[in-house]
Amino acid sequence: MVVDSYFSSSDDIYKEKFPDLCDFLKRKTRKCFRLKTITDKLPILKWLPKYVPKWFIQDFVAGLTVGLTSVPQSIAYGVVAGLDPQYGLYSAFMSSFVYIVFGTCKDLTIGPTAIMALMINSHAVLSPDFAVLASFLCGCLMFLLGVLNLGFLIQFISIPVVTGFTAAAAATIGSAQINTLFGIKNNRTNELVDAWINFFSSLDKISLYNALLGVLTLVFLILMRYFKDVKFLPKVIAKYISLARNAFAVIIGIIIAYCLTDSDGNGPFKLTGEIKSGMPPFKLPPFSTTVDGEELSFKDMINQLGFSIVSIALISILDTVTMAKAFLKGKTVDASQEMIAVGICNIMGSFVSALPNTASYTRTALNNASGVRTTLGGAVTGSLILLTLAFLAETFYYIPKATLSAIIISAMIFLVDYDRIREIWNGKRMDILPFIVTFIACVWLGLEYGILVGIGLNLVFIMFASVRPHVDIILEKVNGIGVAYVELRDDLRYSSAEFLKDRIMKFVNKNSEVQIVVIGGENIYEIDSTVGLVSMSLRTKRKTKKFSQETKTYNDIIRFIFPRTSLC
Amino acid sequence: MVVDSYFSSSDDIYKEKFPDLCDFLKRKTRKCFRLKTITDKLPILKWLPKYVPKWFIQDFVAGLTVGLTSVPQSIAYGVVAGLDPQYGLYSAFMSSFVYIVFGTCKDLTIGPTAIMALMINSHAVLSPDFAVLASFLCGCLMFLLGVLNLGFLIQFISIPVVTGFTAAAAATIGSAQINTLFGIKNNRTNELVDAWINFFSSLDKISLYNALLGVLTLVFLILMRYFKDVKFLPKVIAKYISLARNAFAVIIGIIIAYCLTDSDGNGPFKLTGEIKSGMPPFKLPPFSTTVDGEELSFKDMINQLGFSIVSIALISILDTVTMAKAFLKGKTVDASQEMIAVGICNIMGSFVSALPNTASYTRTALNNASGVRTTLGGAVTGSLILLTLAFLAETFYYIPKATLSAIIISAMIFLVDYDRIREIWNGKRMDILPFIVTFIACVWLGLEYGILVGIGLNLVFIMFASVRPHVDIILEKVNGIGVAYVELRDDLRYSSAEFLKDRIMKFVNKNSEVQIVVIGGENIYEIDSTVGLVSMSLRTKRKTKKFSQETKTYNDIIRFIFPRTSLC
Repeated sequence: MVVDSYFSSSDDIYKEKFPDLCDFLKRKTRKCFRLKTITDKLPILKWLPKYVPKWFIQDFVAGLTVGLTSVPQSIAYGVVAGLDPQYGLYSAFMSSFVYIVFGTCKDLTIGPTAIMALMINSHAVLSPDFAVLASFLCGCLMFLLGVLNLGFLIQFISIPVVTGFTAAAAATIGSAQINTLFGIKNNRTNELVDAWINFFSSLDKISLYNALLGVLTLVFLILMRYFKDVKFLPKVIAKYISLARNAFAVIIGIIIAYCLTDSDGNGPFKLTGEIKSGMPPFKLPPFSTTVDGEELSFKDMINQLGFSIVSIALISILDTVTMAKAFLKGKTVDASQEMIAVGICNIMGSFVSALPNTASYTRTALNNASGVRTTLGGAVTGSLILLTLAFLAETFYYIPKATLSAIIISAMIFLVDYDRIREIWNGKRMDILPFIVTFIACVWLGLEYGILVGIGLNLVFIMFASVRPHVDIILEKVNGIGVAYVELRDDLRYSSAEFLKDRIMKFVNKNSEVQIVVIGGENIYEIDSTVGLVSMSLRTKRKTKKFSQETKTYNDIIRFIFPRTSLC
Repeated sequence: MVVDSYFSSSDDIYKEKFPDLCDFLKRKTRKCFRLKTITDKLPILKWLPKYVPKWFIQDFVAGLTVGLTSVPQSIAYGVVAGLDPQYGLYSAFMSSFVYIVFGTCKDLTIGPTAIMALMINSHAVLSPDFAVLASFLCGCLMFLLGVLNLGFLIQFISIPVVTGFTAAAAATIGSAQINTLFGIKNNRTNELVDAWINFFSSLDKISLYNALLGVLTLVFLILMRYFKDVKFLPKVIAKYISLARNAFAVIIGIIIAYCLTDSDGNGPFKLTGEIKSGMPPFKLPPFSTTVDGEELSFKDMINQLGFSIVSIALISILDTVTMAKAFLKGKTVDASQEMIAVGICNIMGSFVSALPNTASYTRTALNNASGVRTTLGGAVTGSLILLTLAFLAETFYYIPKATLSAIIISAMIFLVDYDRIREIWNGKRMDILPFIVTFIACVWLGLEYGILVGIGLNLVFIMFASVRPHVDIILEKVNGIGVAYVELRDDLRYSSAEFLKDRIMKFVNKNSEVQIVVIGGENIYEIDSTVGLVSMSLRTKRKTKKFSQETKTYNDIIRFIFPRTSLC
């Protein structure tokens, strides 16, 4: 019977897919102890033996450049997270060191980012312990996903969804800083609309000095992006001046603020204030905490963090893998290893009170532009941050808040990928829908739920596409018999079973010369049991003639032949 | 540029899909007033003018047979729903009449079913008003889905999920009746496990008379299914005796119970007790109710019903459309019209205190086997139930509960489609997973959530299949140049973008003779912007040569050509 051969062929496929379990485990165990496996998991073993001293100059320069951007950004992102500024610095050094050992992409710079800071903000404002615990738990989750090779899950986050998410995050973070930029009291709000309402309702409270400094710094930072193209300086010098623009902005801000502030601490600018100097303690992440005098257990903390842990881990993986792919141009990316690396970065970070970390686009691009040769550049960045924590923290008392806001806003302006939005719109109009929905959902419901809405909507596209597979029906005369040849062109899933049946029945009812219907499966690899059963239900219990039975091969899954009488 | 032509071609497709809106609305408006549209919506107008008197004999016999089964089943399902038995009868007549006007499938019998009764049970036990309101709301939802032509949504419920759902429902309902069958006090539980625990912990409380009657009735009902094949009676008589077995069981039960019960109402059997005689009042469905002296508003009632409304409506649609397809063998089913019909049945039912209705498999098969010619058979069934309510309700005082349990259990035993489970297992091993998961989830979480879990799991299959499209890469020498021809065979969605890129890059890295990569899209219809952008990212910013630019047609969406240098 044709049906039987369909079943038995699918059976063979099954055995092919699931070979003997013992063999599988043996192979896996043996693989564990091969040298390649070890160097895959510890990439430092691959490049360190080949390290050439002259590379170190390049790594040093790149590490330093990244460090000079990392310090002001970290301080700013500590503030975005709703914490004291030193937490930003605590978050920035451990990953730089850890990634040297485990990272596979020389350019990648792991640390705090604006999006991570915003995502943890609602929990961190309760107590820094939440941010640190989130870092630990997200790290564990990323490590686990990496070990289990589940990185492919991020493929369900499409470019329109990522673009919408990033645009929403940038708009939210940038908007929240608008108030600080103009010296208006910021209610630590993270709502885009609230921030603008606050801004426009407080226009009379704009502080001239703060606004002037903020706007000028912002203009300076935006112009400095293009400083690398100036003609009057040697190209390489112009490039490094452009790359170090954040450091310049901070230094200029500190100098102006220091000069204009009197010895009692009164001056025209709102200042960052005291940044606690010294190393953070190396200790276990907090598994319990106290908020407003109330003792919270581990379980209470997990309940508070809730779904954020998954969202933060996913976004962190997404950023890391996407950037690794972008900067490893053409080389195959070991996504699982990247997940393991950033997972360990976050776990280790949680021992020094760090916020959740991920790859920073700004600093990774900077690292690449500065010509880094290996991940060792991270050692220089990390050391610079440690030195800052040990000796320079007090200097940062004088960083005007408006300067930090300008740094954040200038980063956010360039985080939105305007070209990409245009490309999505030009590429396929429908794809602008997940972009818009993700953007609105992220702004409205918060980033962690917004991205879920976007992913969910985009999955609906996949599901609906599966309802209407491409089926061609051709009517041919073979030896005077009318044959309707149904050519299946996509693999069929249960959701398309009824569509296939309806198409065939409509065709047969319309073309009275059809005497035989052949369903040909040469071009498909797989159908599921619903499609099989629904297709078979086309045949009534009458005896049916079979003209062909070439159904032994893998590609020939179905080849029913039924006389027309059985269809009506 | 190749990219541009890809974009512009997709643009054309778009315009093709969305023609002028005015034209569309004009066409739709004109369509509304065509005769075909009216007869499509009121199918009675199609068959009534052609009605031949001799059909009425067939319709009468079939309607009577169905009615004889409908009465005891309705009483039993009223009890399954946790209500007084007369509610079952209230539920059974209105749909029989309404479906005559709106139904398209002559065999379909709409009424209360065991699954509907079980699904509404948890709400109905609080107050019958919940069941009636649910009937109204589900009816409105079904009507709406039918009008909006959204019936295709049920295609996301695969055969394994339906089979698991039905098996779980049958097991739960059957198990709950085991206690009553043996005369053990039933705690009105609807939990499969609880019912069996109750049964085994109460073995000592088994009532001999009830158990004897129950088991004998069950054996009688099962044997009578096969009575139609006996040789000593004319075939047609044997068939009708077999079909009327439920009525026989009830009549025999009533006679025995009546004879053994003394005038004070004491007897060996637990009896159904008083069934309120007379018609239900014709009134608006209850939009508020009182439970335990507490006044509940419409909003409170909606909150109580919650997600059940959607589940019940979906299951009701699923049953109706599936059965219409099964019994209209080969004719195209107007699923939307069926949804509208069963929606109106439920809305009208709620005016006479009915439970949610759907197509009953048992009675539909009975109707078909009895040779019904048109939906007019429903008039006879409906009238019989009305007569029963008016004159016979008091007789049913004597129906032994064990008899009703036997009727329910025998229906449940044959509700599970054992052949289908075997076919799923033989068809595709993986598909047994959604069956098992749906079964367990339905038993464990209840039917309305269980089916959701099953649908969700099965959707994951569709999603994961989209991650790995079928891509063939062939290496050819053309004029001495190594060309890797990438043949796409499925439509590509964003989830497969990375897979495609990785496949191409691995192939190029492994085969050093590749100089040009061609991505050919002749066999695909559609890609989305993520696939487009990720594929384009294979090209670095270096100038790339293009050898071919035949990308104007619909099928030729991509035909990138890049020299190998741009890939490494």
